[in-house]
Amino acid sequence: MWPEHHLSSVRGIVLVFNRKYFEQCRPPDVVVFPRCVEEVSALAKICYRHNLPIIPFGTGTGLEGGVGALKGGVCFSLRKMDQVLDVHQEDFDVTVEPGVTRKALNSYLRDTGLWFPVDPGADASLCGMAATSASGTNAVHYGTMRENVLNLEVVLADGSVVHTAGKGRRPRKSAAGYNLTNLFVGSEGTLGIITKATLRLYGIPEAVVSAVCSFPSVQAAVDSTVHVLQAGVPIARIEFLDDVMVDACNKFNSLSYPVTPTLFLEFHGTEDSLDEQVRTTEEITSANGGADFQWARDEGTRARLWKARHDAWYAALALRPGCKAYATDVCVPLSRLPHIIVETKEDLIQNGLTGPIAGHVGDGNFHCIMVLDPDDSDEVQRVHQFTERLARRALALEGTCTGEHGVGLGKRALLREEMGPGAMGVMQSLKESLDPKNLMNPGKVL
Amino acid sequence: MWPEHHLSSVRGIVLVFNRKYFEQCRPPDVVVFPRCVEEVSALAKICYRHNLPIIPFGTGTGLEGGVGALKGGVCFSLRKMDQVLDVHQEDFDVTVEPGVTRKALNSYLRDTGLWFPVDPGADASLCGMAATSASGTNAVHYGTMRENVLNLEVVLADGSVVHTAGKGRRPRKSAAGYNLTNLFVGSEGTLGIITKATLRLYGIPEAVVSAVCSFPSVQAAVDSTVHVLQAGVPIARIEFLDDVMVDACNKFNSLSYPVTPTLFLEFHGTEDSLDEQVRTTEEITSANGGADFQWARDEGTRARLWKARHDAWYAALALRPGCKAYATDVCVPLSRLPHIIVETKEDLIQNGLTGPIAGHVGDGNFHCIMVLDPDDSDEVQRVHQFTERLARRALALEGTCTGEHGVGLGKRALLREEMGPGAMGVMQSLKESLDPKNLMNPGKVL
Ligand SMILES: Cc1cc2nc3c(=O)[nH]c(=O)nc-3n(C[C@H](O)[C@H](O)[C@H](O)COP(=O)(O)OP(=O)(O)OC[C@H]3O[C@@H](n4cnc5c(N)ncnc54)[C@H](O)[C@@H]3O)c2cc1C
Ligand SMILES: Cc1cc2nc3c(=O)[nH]c(=O)nc-3n(C[C@H](O)[C@H](O)[C@H](O)COP(=O)(O)OP(=O)(O)OC[C@H]3O[C@@H](n4cnc5c(N)ncnc54)[C@H](O)[C@@H]3O)c2cc1C
Repeated sequence: MWPEHHLSSVRGIVLVFNRKYFEQCRPPDVVVFPRCVEEVSALAKICYRHNLPIIPFGTGTGLEGGVGALKGGVCFSLRKMDQVLDVHQEDFDVTVEPGVTRKALNSYLRDTGLWFPVDPGADASLCGMAATSASGTNAVHYGTMRENVLNLEVVLADGSVVHTAGKGRRPRKSAAGYNLTNLFVGSEGTLGIITKATLRLYGIPEAVVSAVCSFPSVQAAVDSTVHVLQAGVPIARIEFLDDVMVDACNKFNSLSYPVTPTLFLEFHGTEDSLDEQVRTTEEITSANGGADFQWARDEGTRARLWKARHDAWYAALALRPGCKAYATDVCVPLSRLPHIIVETKEDLIQNGLTGPIAGHVGDGNFHCIMVLDPDDSDEVQRVHQFTERLARRALALEGTCTGEHGVGLGKRALLREEMGPGAMGVMQSLKESLDPKNLMNPGKVL
Repeated sequence: MWPEHHLSSVRGIVLVFNRKYFEQCRPPDVVVFPRCVEEVSALAKICYRHNLPIIPFGTGTGLEGGVGALKGGVCFSLRKMDQVLDVHQEDFDVTVEPGVTRKALNSYLRDTGLWFPVDPGADASLCGMAATSASGTNAVHYGTMRENVLNLEVVLADGSVVHTAGKGRRPRKSAAGYNLTNLFVGSEGTLGIITKATLRLYGIPEAVVSAVCSFPSVQAAVDSTVHVLQAGVPIARIEFLDDVMVDACNKFNSLSYPVTPTLFLEFHGTEDSLDEQVRTTEEITSANGGADFQWARDEGTRARLWKARHDAWYAALALRPGCKAYATDVCVPLSRLPHIIVETKEDLIQNGLTGPIAGHVGDGNFHCIMVLDPDDSDEVQRVHQFTERLARRALALEGTCTGEHGVGLGKRALLREEMGPGAMGVMQSLKESLDPKNLMNPGKVL
């Protein structure tokens, strides 16, 4: 009955950040499986009346312990609401219930020529992705959830049902009143339960080309990224792997990429436009010392090529069998990336930590996949201190402690440093005005 | 002392919507010209202490009477804060004070190879554009202000200073806490005074091609738009003009475009990619019955071609010398456009009204530029009724009463119809929590 991933998802953060969360993160008192918005609303009203915390649960893939039941309460598992409701092919939009995952939607859409591009790797629920403001490898071209949600149906703490852009509305843009949609996107279950999301869709690209390129230094890889963006190449994916990550991927997938900073790239477009995109990019990368530029057009070769990137998490874990992983998530202005990555790699080495780096470099966002032994309390402590140092390094460089995973449980103190008391005060008063009893996912974000 | 455009900008809406607003929209009691955020804050504190309304004033180009001093109070004219503060060329971002206009920024950027694309026609202040969630002709490709603001410095009603993404922060994406930036974007001066905006910039395209194409029907023009978007052509501008608008532009600019539904298009990219974009678009438009496809590459011809579109407002006014204009602003899902445009044209004819149509058709957004005699109270009344009917028609088609101009003074009742009581309640409680004394631009939006 109890959603499967729950404990494992909470454990990730628990292990790293603090033993004491482990006790806090017990299972909720009850798990409910509503089948429609009316049931969600009725259940929320009961919780409201009895002051029971409400923890929305999508697919439990979140990386920041967002579904932990810190104060017990009722877990709303939304997986039984799994209908794709309206595909409007000519309008490039669709409405989904909260049990619909990214992959389920895209296979549903297969015959329409359309797709939903935001791709955080995990096959998460789309409403969970909205709740965490997810993004991933495609964001550099297609934007994050912030740019791709047109409307949300939300059940508030008191059980009332609200449509953030008005019921059933789906204009591609609007200037009608406050932007409630983007207040709920990224609110991590602390303001309401998302029971429907209307999303933007895109035409499936006529052709796709993938490429891999090796660099002599982090600086050279990042410079190439900046120049590619400056040249206006509408690149769809541009992913960075450091030498340690490439090495791990080689071992995990029996590959033989040069063990140096590497970019994985993807281009979407028409056959003709791709030739030009690839040519320009190849010119830019080689001017920056990039070598071994390999590109792939057919689906099989592309899939093999990207498998290395997609398996990064597991490849990292395989470096130390029996260990657990936790991903950091800083994001900085592009020009600061070489600096922070180089400093971070030195920090990892100095502290004897395993943390291969993979990042959505077109957005200035990268992750150290920290692989650690959960039973080694000294290592847990060192990893924890490292993650805080890394976040503060990003803050000092005008960046953020979370580019895409959210705040959840463990980054609340960092969020306060990042925002300052003024903005935190505003967030707090928004929370109080929408959830005065603090029942919605208490102990998260704020 | 008193900002120039003030009365004229307020009059637009006043004339159309209701005589009684005319009395309400008197000049504010005082106009202040702060030179820095500290002065804005100090002045706001005085207003707070004495319960004086605060009306932020950018360049006064707003179309919905947003700067009217309904309850008197203090107008904060921000034009003396006119510095471009930080251009980060490699990071594609810039920070501006509230007196900096769109054109001023772009001429400042000229030597950097970068530009800020959001273009609402008027040379408005960028912070005013943020305040109204402006967009315009480029939005189909570059997004609206919602997608292009990274951070805002805001002075709240009580004089406190808040940075919506944390002070000085400018990562290209973030999942850190509630999205305060997009709460203030589009808040029309009712939640705080924007004293700084950090904006995304883009590489100036290597080449630009413009085109004009005539169609046998509204349906054919809209179908072409949908097909161009489906084909993944990264079109930068796709603007619709109805026959009446084309006729007005012909007369105003001594041109001779066929008097039929027409698309004005613009493509941004590299020389090679433009050839392909234009070719694909020409194929699509001619398959939909488009004719007289004219395209222009050199700057002079392009400028002449777009002049017709840019002068639409004045061309409309010239249809009836001595009259005033008011622009409607509905936005609907793309597939609904032919239906609503055809019905709206019939409505105009039946009621003997002058309202040529121009629209950002790639977003589903169009304007009737209503030209009317302000002293003819019967006509004023008929125009008012027409604009309400048009808005309700958009609402019935799952659209919005304002795609980009905002709610201001005259669309508050329509906003309530659009959002429903639930979402209005949320907006109201956000307003109360951030501005409990209702001092920020009272009587607007809500
Ligand atoms: C291997 C791996 C790689 C990843 N890589 C990326 C990446 O590259 N980029 C990226 O952005 N993210 C990445 N993620 C994180 C991913 O975005 C999140 O896991 C996902 O968005 C969460 O969706 P979910 O449905 O599983 O939410 P859950 O894990 O169930 O919940 C996450 C949070 O959202 C809330 N929530 C969930 N559903 C709702 C709802 N319907 N209404 C209100 N609140 C709700 C929960 O209360 C919780 O606070 C990765 C995750 C994994 C496991
Ligand atoms: C001819 C013409 C064509 C137009 N076409 C388009 C179009 O195609 N697309 C489109 O989107 N818009 C269009 N507009 C509207 C345009 O977007 C707005 O006029 C502009 O965004 C307002 O900026 P401003 O600085 O003049 O604001 P103002 O007119 O001074 O103020 C507008 C509102 O914003 C508030 N405000 C202004 N500055 C601040 C600040 N610093 N902090 C807080 N609140 C502030 C004011 O209180 C008021 O409520 C057009 C306008 C004109 C005149």
